Amino acid sequence: MSAPVYLKGDKAGLKQFLDKYDVFLFDCDGVLWSGDHLFPGSVPTLEMLRKKNKQVVFVTNNSTKSRGDYRKKLESMGIPATTEEVFGSSYSASIYISRILPQSHPQLKKKNKVFVVGEAGIETELDSEGIPHIGGTDPAYRRDVTPEDYKLLAAGDPSVLDPDVGVVLVGLDFHFNYLKMCYAYHYIKRGAIFLATNVDSTLPSAGALFPGAGSMSAPLIAMLGGQQPMAFGKPNQAMMDAIEGKFQFDRSRAVMIGDRANTDIKFGIEGKLGGTLAVLTGVTTKQEFLEGDTRPAYYVDELGDLLEGA
Amino acid sequence: MSAPVYLKGDKAGLKQFLDKYDVFLFDCDGVLWSGDHLFPGSVPTLEMLRKKNKQVVFVTNNSTKSRGDYRKKLESMGIPATTEEVFGSSYSASIYISRILPQSHPQLKKKNKVFVVGEAGIETELDSEGIPHIGGTDPAYRRDVTPEDYKLLAAGDPSVLDPDVGVVLVGLDFHFNYLKMCYAYHYIKRGAIFLATNVDSTLPSAGALFPGAGSMSAPLIAMLGGQQPMAFGKPNQAMMDAIEGKFQFDRSRAVMIGDRANTDIKFGIEGKLGGTLAVLTGVTTKQEFLEGDTRPAYYVDELGDLLEGA
Repeated sequence: MSAPVYLKGDKAGLKQFLDKYDVFLFDCDGVLWSGDHLFPGSVPTLEMLRKKNKQVVFVTNNSTKSRGDYRKKLESMGIPATTEEVFGSSYSASIYISRILPQSHPQLKKKNKVFVVGEAGIETELDSEGIPHIGGTDPAYRRDVTPEDYKLLAAGDPSVLDPDVGVVLVGLDFHFNYLKMCYAYHYIKRGAIFLATNVDSTLPSAGALFPGAGSMSAPLIAMLGGQQPMAFGKPNQAMMDAIEGKFQFDRSRAVMIGDRANTDIKFGIEGKLGGTLAVLTGVTTKQEFLEGDTRPAYYVDELGDLLEGA
Repeated sequence: MSAPVYLKGDKAGLKQFLDKYDVFLFDCDGVLWSGDHLFPGSVPTLEMLRKKNKQVVFVTNNSTKSRGDYRKKLESMGIPATTEEVFGSSYSASIYISRILPQSHPQLKKKNKVFVVGEAGIETELDSEGIPHIGGTDPAYRRDVTPEDYKLLAAGDPSVLDPDVGVVLVGLDFHFNYLKMCYAYHYIKRGAIFLATNVDSTLPSAGALFPGAGSMSAPLIAMLGGQQPMAFGKPNQAMMDAIEGKFQFDRSRAVMIGDRANTDIKFGIEGKLGGTLAVLTGVTTKQEFLEGDTRPAYYVDELGDLLEGA
């Protein structure tokens, strides 16, 4: 494994770096901002890249927001963006369900309703692909389990278990509860395909960690005796395939920029991109990037360091 | 591994079996009854054992019921029992927290409040041992998470995170939600000891499976990077130690009777009891008992088969 190249202050190296790529994939939290704090170099760097006619893509594992929601978030942070430039795990999952899954699972051509564990972002993306869904934000699932539920679920009664459900899609759900676990489990046991937007077990917020989408899959995995869901967030390559499908780019001319070795940098390396760039403004430390198992091709202290190469 | 001995119809063998033991530990569901259906041989068999002055103990992993609740359940099924004869995972955990944990963790002598994820049965058993607790059935935790929660939890604010909490105890919780996950995780990250009444991922009901206590631990284990709780249900030997502590019996003169190889029979074998007896009225099949990794010393078709040896 070769050592990551430190580009800060290396004007010629930075210029070469910028010339080498046409497509810049960005992780956001920890790269462009941290929590509510926008890094000062983020907006000028993005402007510089756009002036050079680079394709910019914002790649997020956040399943609770649709691409439109996420564009609004970017704009609220002061970063102009279009919905087309945003790639989220809910969108990636929706594309997979509508376009790819029916090829390998012909039964889904007739029975493609999705039982959603998650928030509105998933529903919006499923709607955008025309996929029918139940569960999700429906208040009917935000209640206690009853003895009647046990009986009807155990019997597979079609009044509670919709026979058209062919997929269970699990993302971050702030309204997760016992009843939703029961439904998701029984649909999967009756043959529905088990998918997860992403399996990050934690969600960083306010400088600490909270339950992530992986915490909603974990009980199901345990109940199913270890069966893992197919997942779409970084570093899963289903996401990279979806991004490539959309932008039709040459992977050797693309670079992934991120703050986490085991998600962002791994995503770029396994996707066989032309390069990976780490920033030191997020989760993974310099030492981990230099000595860990997953090393970026390049690193800088912060994103704004790229400006010197312009 | 020697082959399990089939006792049904073997009058001399059955008589020898009954003479060999003074203490009969019973799993209940699948042995004495199935769901709402009491097996016809259960009551006469228990009567026969009592007449012979055998000690009968009902051992259950069900954490939602206290011993008193469980005695009522036994009586509602037509089985006379005393509270003293019942051993549940919540009681076992409570004894451990009050009597054993403070020896190895002196900080608990001052800071022994328990944050409970679970139902009333856990609270009743903690009360019976005089252990202070929060969480559990308190309706204040049955609500959505708010942005304020994130800030206060991240800051470790004592107005939300009680500084006296030294233990997180996780059992089956029909009111499990995102907020409880947040609290349990933050208490453990701040040093609380992670315990589980039991880690059965599923709960049999109405002839199907539903989320068990292990489904409440699973998200926490994922968030904690794989850290496992200490657990008290069968086959965990903390439960056997507690039973022995109470009844002061000779393990070689005790037998465990159950329908599940990987919980009941394993519990008896690892507890070095004098014997184990499997019944074929529950989860594990005859073939699994005869050919599996965990084999009972004896087996009968159903509990009532023991009557022939009386």
